Parts: sequence; structure tokens; C-alpha cells
Amino acid sequence: MSGSKTTDGAFFEDFRLGQTIVHATPRTVTEGDVALHTALYGSRFAVQSSRTLAAAIGLPGAPLDDWLVFHIVFGKTVPDISRNAVANLGYADGRFGRPVYPGDTLRAVSEVIGLRESAKGDAGVVHVRSVGINQYDEEVLSYVRWVLVRKRVLDAPPPAPVAPELPAHVPVDALVVPDGVDLRGYDTTLSGSTALWDDYDVGERIDHVDGVTIEEADHMLATRLWQNTARVHFDLHAARGGRFGRRLVYGGHVISLARALSFNGLANAFKVAALNAGRHVAPVFAGDTIYAWSEVVARDALPGRADLGALRLRTVAAKDHPCGDFPDRDAKGAPHPAVVLDLDTTVLMPRRI
Amino acid sequence: MSGSKTTDGAFFEDFRLGQTIVHATPRTVTEGDVALHTALYGSRFAVQSSRTLAAAIGLPGAPLDDWLVFHIVFGKTVPDISRNAVANLGYADGRFGRPVYPGDTLRAVSEVIGLRESAKGDAGVVHVRSVGINQYDEEVLSYVRWVLVRKRVLDAPPPAPVAPELPAHVPVDALVVPDGVDLRGYDTTLSGSTALWDDYDVGERIDHVDGVTIEEADHMLATRLWQNTARVHFDLHAARGGRFGRRLVYGGHVISLARALSFNGLANAFKVAALNAGRHVAPVFAGDTIYAWSEVVARDALPGRADLGALRLRTVAAKDHPCGDFPDRDAKGAPHPAVVLDLDTTVLMPRRI
Amino acid sequence: MSGSKTTDGAFFEDFRLGQTIVHATPRTVTEGDVALHTALYGSRFAVQSSRTLAAAIGLPGAPLDDWLVFHIVFGKTVPDISRNAVANLGYADGRFGRPVYPGDTLRAVSEVIGLRESAKGDAGVVHVRSVGINQYDEEVLSYVRWVLVRKRVLDAPPPAPVAPELPAHVPVDALVVPDGVDLRGYDTTLSGSTALWDDYDVGERIDHVDGVTIEEADHMLATRLWQNTARVHFDLHAARGGRFGRRLVYGGHVISLARALSFNGLANAFKVAALNAGRHVAPVFAGDTIYAWSEVVARDALPGRADLGALRLRTVAAKDHPCGDFPDRDAKGAPHPAVVLDLDTTVLMPRRI
Repeated sequence: MSGSKTTDGAFFEDFRLGQTIVHATPRTVTEGDVALHTALYGSRFAVQSSRTLAAAIGLPGAPLDDWLVFHIVFGKTVPDISRNAVANLGYADGRFGRPVYPGDTLRAVSEVIGLRESAKGDAGVVHVRSVGINQYDEEVLSYVRWVLVRKRVLDAPPPAPVAPELPAHVPVDALVVPDGVDLRGYDTTLSGSTALWDDYDVGERIDHVDGVTIEEADHMLATRLWQNTARVHFDLHAARGGRFGRRLVYGGHVISLARALSFNGLANAFKVAALNAGRHVAPVFAGDTIYAWSEVVARDALPGRADLGALRLRTVAAKDHPCGDFPDRDAKGAPHPAVVLDLDTTVLMPRRI
Repeated sequence: MSGSKTTDGAFFEDFRLGQTIVHATPRTVTEGDVALHTALYGSRFAVQSSRTLAAAIGLPGAPLDDWLVFHIVFGKTVPDISRNAVANLGYADGRFGRPVYPGDTLRAVSEVIGLRESAKGDAGVVHVRSVGINQYDEEVLSYVRWVLVRKRVLDAPPPAPVAPELPAHVPVDALVVPDGVDLRGYDTTLSGSTALWDDYDVGERIDHVDGVTIEEADHMLATRLWQNTARVHFDLHAARGGRFGRRLVYGGHVISLARALSFNGLANAFKVAALNAGRHVAPVFAGDTIYAWSEVVARDALPGRADLGALRLRTVAAKDHPCGDFPDRDAKGAPHPAVVLDLDTTVLMPRRI
Repeated sequence: MSGSKTTDGAFFEDFRLGQTIVHATPRTVTEGDVALHTALYGSRFAVQSSRTLAAAIGLPGAPLDDWLVFHIVFGKTVPDISRNAVANLGYADGRFGRPVYPGDTLRAVSEVIGLRESAKGDAGVVHVRSVGINQYDEEVLSYVRWVLVRKRVLDAPPPAPVAPELPAHVPVDALVVPDGVDLRGYDTTLSGSTALWDDYDVGERIDHVDGVTIEEADHMLATRLWQNTARVHFDLHAARGGRFGRRLVYGGHVISLARALSFNGLANAFKVAALNAGRHVAPVFAGDTIYAWSEVVARDALPGRADLGALRLRTVAAKDHPCGDFPDRDAKGAPHPAVVLDLDTTVLMPRRI
């Protein structure tokens, strides 16, 4: 009966439009996860780092880093969605909801919202909306991603192609400010910067200066911590015979490195509120050193809030290339060869009162 | 006076039959240990991963992974038992007792139950029963292991040879089901598999599919976390002049990797109840990729329990060799060259009600 | 406006005598940090390892390892003090104050107490006293360090040279014994050694026997965990063009390794009370194996305490050189080529009652 009990994951022809997938193994997140997140990325954002600063802005404790929440929810979805993915193509319409605190238990549910067989017919693009939910059934995160998934049976009939409509970015009035937050207690000495929402200009570019080199042990520790089972990250023996000849770093690892690096220039971006869009432009491997820069895409007030505003940011990460020259697309739109990540997020930042 | 205060551990001639050794440095285990365990092995068993699922089956919290408990207890014994071991030869009669929760403090005591000088006279086999105890003096684990320990003084007189009687496996009626456990609340959607105790056949073989590569940093972080002081795992400078020329991975690290891999095929084996026997067949080094397969050796009902049953499993781990072909002993009983671990455990699994 | 929001740290000419620097990003330390500290260093000191043993000597919980506290406070100071340091030259007058427990939030403040431009005029020595403070405004640590910091503007005028007066060591009556501590409940079986304060002689040398090899992932995990942003530890791409061609291990990482190794010979040194002096004699890189030895410099009773006394220790760490021969300075005072650390601390140890 072996074979019926193990899984090698879903293939393209296994997905159905509208299908709902309840992902396995809910995960209680703890202060242990928070410490490991700090050890893996070195993040210094003050509200996540310090209970006293979190309390000063009205939160009941230091919330988990928003990307840590993303990784946990994402990890839940991998066995069902992307185990046989050729590539993780993109993200859209990501909204962070209720803050997550140590002790919360997260689970994930996905719905298939788009299907399109590839031109070659050996794979297809699957769009899913994945939702992370806490132990009170409150939404902590909702986002769309699309992946290219292999077919198991090459002549399986293609589904009717459906592409979901996706917003270019999360509208400002859909951003969630955690209940009780009042930034009047925010301390810009202890947060590491006096630059507030008011001080950023649309079009402004910020080089995040520092770089961090990735080790095999780093990214595997991280990816196991998120219970992400994609074998490309873990199995050197199999990877030797594969496309790259080595293990691939989980794309979310690069997102978290870029977020941690962005402290230098965006120290008061105390919360990620939206993942508007994102693309892993090129693969990352152990030994690569990640740098990043950001551009302010939009600066929006929030309805009814004098204490904080939203900054929409484009953050670009590059490998083995310091970002003082802001590596970007060329005139024809081709990405700079060093660029590995192109991420569009919206962050919350205190306003000058 | 130096020398009297430091220790290079016990040698074969230092052990006495019946000797009781109270091991040093009790250890409070925490959510930090749990998070690191997840980061090191990527385990996804739902009851250990989630407070909500643990509560649903009657437990007061998410218990620690059983092998995490083993590693902590084992680590305590190393300075006194196996610091000068040439080889860790085997395990028997291991029983997991009270579940361990974050905040519990574990200590360990061993009794010497067997001694036999080697034929060459330069070492000897020491059998110990080691017991792990929590802060309430409750037994959390008891197991026998035997190790080949060097002699310091080659002409020290040999002890009368004594070999303990050991059961082939822990009898079913000696298995401990944690107090209050009631599997009627077990959720097979969230646990990751619908295959229950009833669905496994004696003789059935399961390939656990995935592989994980070990890095030097991984196994050293783990082994330090368990406060295991065996120098072969840590000291490259000394290892360069030794038998293998490099650091050896702690055998328990491979056990935990095999357990985590076994989720794919045995997701509902929510608790390890017994370590019947076990042998580290070949050394493991950083760079090796570990795969595993299991065979169902026995399927036993438990007295008075309609909600769960016991599966006795033989789990074999191999390096750099995916286990779809179930690598095993050849006709003459010699192990397949890729095999590194041969482990006989009993797990508990929900029954179909 | 980029450039005004990011920082590349302070240069020598930016410091002013008497200047007070409130460092950013307070940090709540947790059981997650404790577990990682154990995983990184393998420390086994019983009071830090076990709530039950901590309670037995009158503490409300297992306190954090003293060096873990040091690393957190030190890390806070790096972005403001030593981001542009050429070298971390020394430590003096370090006093550990209130014990730190999981859940405490630490912040740091430094005062510039010495300035002296280098003879070459391209850098200068900055002395700072850094103080770590908990959420109750209690001092947990105070120490002086001095660093050689580059100048940004080479012809910036030199300050009047000021060198602080520093004690050769912290006086015994300034050592802090945590409130409520009563060593009569100390258990020398569970602590790992029966050697007490009374058993150590001034001039006695102790080889700590074991060695531990450092991996790149180890020291980067540690240094990120302490939120230490010195780029020399993280950025291989930049390091390739630098002085060593590779990443440098944070000096504090070596201190913690030496402390953990010193358990073998000093198991009852249950608390570090003072950092009298210290010097990183030579750089350490991944791949190096660290060994250590200690010498008892002084043995002092503590006023009013019959249960514990102070040992002043000189601990020397060496790389790729076991310390059975106690590698030290030669006749001309030049350090042994294997030596990497020379540390003068005062520890507390139970007395025989």
C-alpha cells in the first residue's frame, strides 16, 4: 500500500478552479521563532524587537515580524501548492491583518483562483489566494501568488484558462492598522531614526548600504523553521543532477534579508501592511551577498489617522553588487544582471505630529 | 592542582557493575528549544507543532518532540559515559514516559548494567540504563545503550563479563499513553494525512521520499543545544588527525532527520512510544544527504484503547541514496553501503473510530 | 534626500568628549535567545541551564548567561560607536549588575570618556563607557571599551587628547552578588564539579581541554542575534577586497566559546561578576578551532559572605592549538602566535561551608 500514504505533491492537472485546500499542520509561533528570526536576518525594527516600545504605541506585546508571519503561512501552503513548482512567479494583493504574537497558532487555507496551461503543455500556471488564520479564526494575512507547476501526465487535458483580476496594489483604505495603535508614544531616539513619513518624497531612492552573505546552513534552518518542504532548498544530492547543480535559497529568505537591510534608511517603517506585488527575478545561492535599495512609490495619508501614514515602496535586492548605483532595469526593461528581487510593499510609518 | 578539576571523562576500567551515575547540569527546556528543533529538522507532526491540535486530543500544551527529549537526556550522559567512546553500539528497551512541556527541567541518572572487555584488551563494552527525570521526579524516558569505551591503562584488570538481558522490543502493555489523551478529537485534515493505524499492514514498506543535506553548522548547533560534549562532533583540529579526518555527525541528529522525513507516509504517528532497538550502521558527515524508509513490523491494539493503536516500525536511513528501492541488507546480512541507521521504534497512531 | 536617512556610522571626528549616546532598538530577551545561546556555545553552567538549580540558590528564575547580556548591550552600541572601527582595542572596568531574565528589555547608553588621534592622523582612539539598562532602569552592565575609529575627513582637526583613568581591575567590594542569592542550596553533584572556591590556588593554571570549530553560519547567526551591525562579520563580497579577504568573527563570539569551554575546570564559576580587562589578540575566522586555558590571578573573600567568594581569572584562548602547554607571551612579551584572546574576569564561586 506504499504510495498511497506518501505524497509527492499536486501536479498541474490536479488543481481545479475554485478548489479550496485546507493546509496541514497548524503552527504555534513562539518567542523561539522570534529569536531565530533575529538570528537569521538581524532585523532591528524597534516595535518587533522590544516589548516596551510595542507597549508605548498601544500594542499588548511585541508583534511578530510581518514577514515571519508570511513565511509560516507560505510554508503551510508548499506541500499542497508548490512542491512541484518549476518557479514561483509572483505575488499580488497581499494584506497583513491581525498582528501575530508569540503563542498564537496559525493555519492556512488556499483557494485556486486561476489556471492556465503553458504553451509547451508540460506545465501550467496556478493562481491561489492563500489566507493565514489565527486560533480565533481571525485573518492574519491574505495574498495571491502564482506558480508554474509541472504536469505529471503530459497529455492530461488542459483546463479552460482563467486569469484572476488582481489590483495593481492594495488600496490605502484596505490597509489594516492594528487595533489600539497610537503612534503618539513612538520614540524616534530608540527607534533608530528621526526620519518620519513626512520626510520621504515620492521618487526618492534609498541605498540600504549594508550586505549580508547567505550560508547553506542559514537558509536551510530558516526554511525548515517555516516547515517549507520544497526539496530544491534541502537536497544537495538531488540538486546535483538538477538545473542549477546546487540548492536554491527560498525566495522568502531574500525578502526577509532585504527587509532587515532596509532598517538603514527606513527604520521607522514599523509595520509592513501590504505586499502589492513581487517577483523573484533571479535565483539566489549560498555564498551570495545580498544588498538592497528602495524607492518611494507613493506616500499616502490614512483616513482618520494623524499619527501615521503609508509609504508604498519598491525594494530591489541584488547579489554581490552594492546598491549605491541603484541597479535596475535597462532601457529595454531587462533587469540588471545582479538583481534578484523586485518587491512592491506598503509600510506604515509615524507622522510628525 | 590542575588536572584534578578538569575531566577527560571515564575510561573502561573506571566503570563498576551496578554503579549509579547522577549526571550534571539539569536542563530547563523551553519554546526556544522547540523552535530550534524545528529549524534543525523541519518536523511537522501536528500535535508537537500546534497547541490547538494538542488541546484537541486532551493535552495541556504542545508536548516536546520525543527525540528532543531523548537528545537532552542523552546529552547529559555523554560527559560521564561516552566521552571516550570508540563507538556507540546500540540501544534497547527505550520507553518514553511522561510527556515533556516547555518549562520542564530534565536531569538524568545512569546505572551500569553490563561490562565486557574487548578481545584486544584495549577497550570494553559498557551497558548503561539511562533515565531522564523531570522536576516532579517523574520518568520521561528510560533506555539502555551500550558503547565501546577505551581503556586509559591498558593492563587494568578486566571485570567479570556481564551482559544484561534485554527484551527484543518493548512489550505493548508497557507503552505509555499520556494521561488525558483522547484521540477522538484528532483532525486528519490538519494532521496532514488520512491514513490511520487501521490502514497500515504488517510488512508494508514506505519510502519517505524527501532528502535533507547536513551542514557542519547544523549538526554542531544541534549537538551543543543538547549539551552533548563528545569532541568528535566539534573539533576539526583534532579530527584532522583522527580516524575520519573530519567531524562526525552525532547519531541522534540522523535519528531526528529520519523521524522528520517519516512525516511523509506516517504523518499520524503522533508520538514515539518506544525505542526498541537501534544501530548507527555507518558514520555520517556534513555534506551527506539523508533519506529514509520504514517497514511496518507489527500492528498492535492497545489494551482498553479504541482510539489509538501501536505500530512497530523499522526505519532505515541512507545517505546520498533515495530510498525508493528500500536499501537493506544483502543475502549475507551485510548492510547496503548507503545505509547509516537501522532503528526499531514503536509509535502511537489514531484508529478509525 | 537619500543619504540623510541612511547611516554609515560615526567617524573619529564625530565624537566629542562627554557626549552621551542613547543607542537605538531596545531588545526584549527571551527563552529563544537562551536556547540559541546554548546552541551557539554549548554552555553548561548549571544555574543558567536549570530553573530548579537557580531556584535552589534563591533566584526567581534561570538568569541569562552574563556574556549573552554583554553581547546584547555591545550590539546596541555598534551602529553608533564601532561601525567604522579599524580595531576593537580593549575592555576595562566591566561590572555585571542586576541579573537579566527572559522577558526583560535591555537598552544601552554610552558616554565618550576618551579621545586621542592616532599618530598617522587617519584615525583615533575613542573610549566609551557603555551601560546596559533593563525596563526598570536598573543597570545590568557597565563597561569601558576603546576602539580605533577611522576619520572620514583626514584633515579634521584633532581633539585635545584625553585618556580616562581606568582601574587595573574591578575592586572586590564593587562586585554585585544578585539579591537573594544564598549558595547553601548549591548542589555540586548537579553542577558538574566538586571543586569550590576554597580549592583554587593563586597561580594555578587550568587547561580547559576541549576545542570547538567555528563555522561561518555560527558566528553570523550569533552576531545577527545580538543585532551587531559591523559589516566585517557579514559581508563576504566586501571582505574579499579587504584586509583579510574574508569575514571576521565577532570577538565576543570567542569570549563566549572560551567561557563555555571553561566549564571543564571551572564548572562552579556560576556567575561572571567583572570584566576587568580584555584584548582580542589576533583575528579569528571560520574554520578556526578555539581552545582555552585559565590562570587563577586572585582569590578573594567577599565582605559579609561565607557562602561564596571571588576568583579573578586570566583566560587565554588559542586557535588550532590545544592548551595543555598553556600558550602565552614569550620572554619579550610577544603573544604566542596561536593566541587570539586574553581576558581578565572575576567570577563568583561557592565556598565550602
